[in-house]
Amino acid sequence: MNKITGHYSQSYDSELNEAVDRLLTMGALVEQQLRDAIKAFIKGDRELAQQVIQTDRKVNTYEISIEEHCLEIIARRQPAARDLRLIMGVLKSINDVERVGDQAEHIAKQLLEEDCQRPTDAQLEDIEMMGDKVLHMLQQSLKAFKEMDAALALAVLKQDKLVDNDYGRILRHNLTYMLEDTRQITRGLHLIWVARALERIGDHAQNICEFSIFIAKGKNVSHLTEEEVEAVVDKGKK
Amino acid sequence: MNKITGHYSQSYDSELNEAVDRLLTMGALVEQQLRDAIKAFIKGDRELAQQVIQTDRKVNTYEISIEEHCLEIIARRQPAARDLRLIMGVLKSINDVERVGDQAEHIAKQLLEEDCQRPTDAQLEDIEMMGDKVLHMLQQSLKAFKEMDAALALAVLKQDKLVDNDYGRILRHNLTYMLEDTRQITRGLHLIWVARALERIGDHAQNICEFSIFIAKGKNVSHLTEEEVEAVVDKGKK
Repeated sequence: MNKITGHYSQSYDSELNEAVDRLLTMGALVEQQLRDAIKAFIKGDRELAQQVIQTDRKVNTYEISIEEHCLEIIARRQPAARDLRLIMGVLKSINDVERVGDQAEHIAKQLLEEDCQRPTDAQLEDIEMMGDKVLHMLQQSLKAFKEMDAALALAVLKQDKLVDNDYGRILRHNLTYMLEDTRQITRGLHLIWVARALERIGDHAQNICEFSIFIAKGKNVSHLTEEEVEAVVDKGKK
Repeated sequence: MNKITGHYSQSYDSELNEAVDRLLTMGALVEQQLRDAIKAFIKGDRELAQQVIQTDRKVNTYEISIEEHCLEIIARRQPAARDLRLIMGVLKSINDVERVGDQAEHIAKQLLEEDCQRPTDAQLEDIEMMGDKVLHMLQQSLKAFKEMDAALALAVLKQDKLVDNDYGRILRHNLTYMLEDTRQITRGLHLIWVARALERIGDHAQNICEFSIFIAKGKNVSHLTEEEVEAVVDKGKK
């Protein structure tokens, strides 16, 4: 069953569906970009890093065309209530997806700027583990949007704490290395930047989840505590 | 002369004006928050830093209430063309203004986390100079929005390069200090975080300028080169 629409006008339905479909296509592109960025950094694959950077132009084109599509729908269809929230949610989500792409590009650039020896296996493992979590969050946030699944969105929101913890741990580890051995400073900073980029991607995934809850439940939850969001999501459930 | 509106319906006019007014009030609040954050960091004033952090809740409340106001206008007035762009511009700008507030909070937190000796006068001067530039960019970006002045918006866009240069310089200086003296690492990182927060505030000011150009000229310029944006702004000018 299509959970997104259900209007008498079939073409209005298909316009709304298309907005969501395009967001998801853009999301899949950025997901791949992030996967490649992490892989490139871990493997030291400079060619793949270059590809990640080049993808950015494509992502930007998507953002602009989806934005135009949504503004056209607002102007021509005059959506209200849930439809309006859906369009607003798409408009806001493309912005976050685009910023995830920027961060992926940033990770790829850290590899290309690497002017020192490669990180140790243990350091790379830390990044890989954190990267897996963030990638999972991004996937799930897009899935929650696709299926308008507020409960799934809430589950993703809760994962962000783990990612924040990872960032804190990587930051502390690297500071310790840097304090012990000054030759580690440039390398340590690269690792900190990458971890910070991943942490911010987690925040963007969180935003996308908040938009799904906004669409499904009609309430802006972006500044609420976890308990308050839970209450919003549970409301109206049997 | 009021450049923003001009409808037959006075109440529609006043609703649109109110959306912009509230954005500007929120902007002035965040501007003050940023000014205080920079001052607190420079002077080492922990009490002021606490105030900056507490302002955040107020900023968030503004964001939500303006968003609701804008969604109501869309649903009830069915704006088209420039009015719709204006509402979208307000909706997007409040997001950027809110993020400026987050960065100001971040700067204040750097002071509170300071567990080492204070930065040197030269280091603080660097931050102060960069802070002045960024504060000026933020003020001018809100002014450009208020007056729908695309030429001013373009002038602000051009300033961002200077801020990026400042960030690069502060980053390099601090890395050099850190390499020379490991006792400088924690202090150096605090300064790098503050400079990075300022650099990102510059990016948000840029976004706000791009929205003014979008409203005034009807074209999304966010991924264009400086020359391309110039051509958009100059178009239709005598």
